[in-house]
Amino acid sequence: MNGADALISTLVANEVTACFANPGTSEMQFVAALDGVPAMRPVLCQFEGVATGAADGYGRIADKPACTLLHLGPGYGNGVANLHNARRAYTPIVNVIGDHATYHRQYDAPLNSDIATLVKPNSIWAKSADTPDAVAGLAAEAVAASFGPPGGPVSLILPADSAWLPASGEPVIAQRPVRPAPAGSAVEAAARAIKAAKKPVLLLGGQAVRAEALKEAARLQAAGVTVYSDTFVSRQPRGAGGFAPKKMQYFGEMALAELEGVDLMVYAGTTMPVAFFAYPDRPSVLVPEGCAQLTLAERGEDAVAGLAALADALGAPKEGPSQTLSLPEAAPTGKLTAYAVGASIARHMPEGAIICDDAVTSGAGVAAAGSTARPHEVLALTGGAIGIGLPLAIGAAVAAPDRKVLSLNGDGAAMYTVQALWTMAREDLDITVVVFANHTYRILNIEMQRTGAGEAGPSARKLLDLGDPKVEWVQLARGLGLPAVRCTSAEDFERAFEGAMGQRGPMFIEAAI
Amino acid sequence: MNGADALISTLVANEVTACFANPGTSEMQFVAALDGVPAMRPVLCQFEGVATGAADGYGRIADKPACTLLHLGPGYGNGVANLHNARRAYTPIVNVIGDHATYHRQYDAPLNSDIATLVKPNSIWAKSADTPDAVAGLAAEAVAASFGPPGGPVSLILPADSAWLPASGEPVIAQRPVRPAPAGSAVEAAARAIKAAKKPVLLLGGQAVRAEALKEAARLQAAGVTVYSDTFVSRQPRGAGGFAPKKMQYFGEMALAELEGVDLMVYAGTTMPVAFFAYPDRPSVLVPEGCAQLTLAERGEDAVAGLAALADALGAPKEGPSQTLSLPEAAPTGKLTAYAVGASIARHMPEGAIICDDAVTSGAGVAAAGSTARPHEVLALTGGAIGIGLPLAIGAAVAAPDRKVLSLNGDGAAMYTVQALWTMAREDLDITVVVFANHTYRILNIEMQRTGAGEAGPSARKLLDLGDPKVEWVQLARGLGLPAVRCTSAEDFERAFEGAMGQRGPMFIEAAI
Repeated sequence: MNGADALISTLVANEVTACFANPGTSEMQFVAALDGVPAMRPVLCQFEGVATGAADGYGRIADKPACTLLHLGPGYGNGVANLHNARRAYTPIVNVIGDHATYHRQYDAPLNSDIATLVKPNSIWAKSADTPDAVAGLAAEAVAASFGPPGGPVSLILPADSAWLPASGEPVIAQRPVRPAPAGSAVEAAARAIKAAKKPVLLLGGQAVRAEALKEAARLQAAGVTVYSDTFVSRQPRGAGGFAPKKMQYFGEMALAELEGVDLMVYAGTTMPVAFFAYPDRPSVLVPEGCAQLTLAERGEDAVAGLAALADALGAPKEGPSQTLSLPEAAPTGKLTAYAVGASIARHMPEGAIICDDAVTSGAGVAAAGSTARPHEVLALTGGAIGIGLPLAIGAAVAAPDRKVLSLNGDGAAMYTVQALWTMAREDLDITVVVFANHTYRILNIEMQRTGAGEAGPSARKLLDLGDPKVEWVQLARGLGLPAVRCTSAEDFERAFEGAMGQRGPMFIEAAI
Repeated sequence: MNGADALISTLVANEVTACFANPGTSEMQFVAALDGVPAMRPVLCQFEGVATGAADGYGRIADKPACTLLHLGPGYGNGVANLHNARRAYTPIVNVIGDHATYHRQYDAPLNSDIATLVKPNSIWAKSADTPDAVAGLAAEAVAASFGPPGGPVSLILPADSAWLPASGEPVIAQRPVRPAPAGSAVEAAARAIKAAKKPVLLLGGQAVRAEALKEAARLQAAGVTVYSDTFVSRQPRGAGGFAPKKMQYFGEMALAELEGVDLMVYAGTTMPVAFFAYPDRPSVLVPEGCAQLTLAERGEDAVAGLAALADALGAPKEGPSQTLSLPEAAPTGKLTAYAVGASIARHMPEGAIICDDAVTSGAGVAAAGSTARPHEVLALTGGAIGIGLPLAIGAAVAAPDRKVLSLNGDGAAMYTVQALWTMAREDLDITVVVFANHTYRILNIEMQRTGAGEAGPSARKLLDLGDPKVEWVQLARGLGLPAVRCTSAEDFERAFEGAMGQRGPMFIEAAI
């Protein structure tokens, strides 16, 4: 047994059984060791941003980490943007980053870099296994650390000699940490404040928007508390049978307008809401002036327990409101819009579907119809780094092979990690990809006005427009191995999407909006 | 004038006139300010790794920095791998990284991250312009710092409010640093050691493999010193009329076998040669045992002056050997191999062409025929992070619009930054792209053996093979806006390549080897 064997054995012993990889020479021992442990599923990604985004999707659905296998500093670097998103989703991920042999580092060979510093901003734990005997113990520590709470990506640096030298010992089992319940005093304070408030709001995020927590939140809504969720959350059920909290508006001034008169905000699994970006003369903090704020459950605490205790303390009914099933009866017709797409999705999406949402300005149409569709779950862009919709879907599909996965993407966003389409084909994943092709960074045209930057002239337009040339998405997707179709009308899309839902395997649909 | 105007004015005043960009909301003021300064050419890249690799290619050819425009930490993160390569090429680049407004950072909005730490490993200078009045001065400082010597990427963080608030003052002009000549004592010591040595070797890198330096190195070759260059260099002339030093072998044991008996190694513009990777029981240091080592010129010193002085001190002839023109007379026929591709390239590549080489295992065939082809230049993969061949070509073509640019890529490498094809089409750049499609990470099949990892089993093969499905490169390239053709025989390639050399504009050729 060498260090690489010890690593994979310990990962599998801790239920880490998926590896999203793009290896290089320094990772060859890890690659070879995979043959000895068939419980670990290797998934090749032709770009590391796909690997890290897939690990995020896997972790959100499986509630346990996948590992990635990345090639030194540059390989990790390619994965940074989606690890940023994963950090903001609090998703457990174990990054295994190959490095030069310990004795070789001193020579500063071309691929050498300061990995320890590079991983810092997006790792909640980071260590280097500088001897083969340290590997198993550190791997177990890495898995445990990735759970937090509230969890996040960790980085285990694996020098080549620690992988190839003999290693002793059995797999090490990590203790999975338990989320502590919020203190009774926090629950009591929240109950007292809510009773005294005229217009109390409960804001949910993280674990507090998962199914079990939403049931308790619905009781609070029934008791007179208006319940919101964060704008972008890691994983949230939606559709019939569940409770649908309001969502915080993306633009700060709209959020504040909606919250006018609110005199208490209570947080569960999240913190004070702030604007996504700053703009000249617009607010950063999205809490009305003079409004009191309280935390019921920190991100790392057991939000379900906190919400249940609060509902009990307020004498809330045993059940709160829930969405009733209401599908668009008629197939949409005419011009293809994001709302027409949303209607077709709501009509045909099966129960239990997972939506990976990187649709940017086209997302609202799907959300509108989705709220009363068959029950499904939504994984959102938590960190603002576009290019996660395709990779997330890979991870979700690997974690839940029996569920239909929808990947919804703006065309600008999809291009970032377009290599993901190949992995979907290679692994024959049950994913339907929709790319909303408007051939522009639409959001930036809006933001240009909001930042006071004025009208775009010729130079500025060159940086916002994607229409010259227009990407031929169907050719691109076919080139990467996917069946693909382009839809230019609502009827087209309805037909294509219904067809995709009626079969298994990957499918690509360009929605020419 | 606001901070963004001040920034662009100062950049242009310092001859920074190309901006490879993928902006977001926090960069809208910079985007708008471009309209006021038409001397700055904005080039949109649909992924930041394309932007940073293009800036590297631009800097290598223009001998001055381009700027990039990147969206906070994740945008920079996407550019890390090619900035690693640029750092290893010592290429001046000014990265402008948009950040949240200074007062907004404290709220840790979703896109917030520790940019200052993230940029450290690949920045030779990094500062944040936290007031609008600081912008112009820091921009000038950034440009100056990017020159080194020996130069490299710098990072200027630009908070949104520093861009949108009024800024005072004129553009600030930076002093371009001068490379100091090596000390006379270093030249004398090298001359003495060479005279005393039985088998002296001169190893060149960086500035010492540029045209002017190679002329002096040729004189030393004529005086009995065997001249080598580093395996991977930033920019080197090749072909008829110039001096062709030997190249250090990639695999360490081959390099050492070739250097057997060498008793002196003198370095100019580089340092002690080391193996690209460590392997069990193979050497890290590629210097024969007992061999003396001396540095004639540090990377930041004036290697041309050092080499000339050394040649004079040794009484070397005024001129050394140079390559004579010798093109393959017959068009290659039959099976398409990397050598057949190399022959066609040598036959038809025009004088002054720039080759951006990310061809990995397919590169040797081109190098073989290229050594006596029409004079051209080669930009190599300096940092080992594949995925630079396409972006480098964009930058080279923007810097030298009158020269033909060839981008040679392994298929695994090309996929990393495939979005670059779109920018080539959009900007109508005179680039001929060749992708060697062997549908495998060929190098890793070799490395698997060398690392002692053994034969690949089913799991390992899943991480090395790219053939299931095979990427349809022609569809992919056409989807991204390029004319494209697939060549399966040497005759096919000869015809396609000759055609591409006879016209202007971007062209994509898949070499199915």
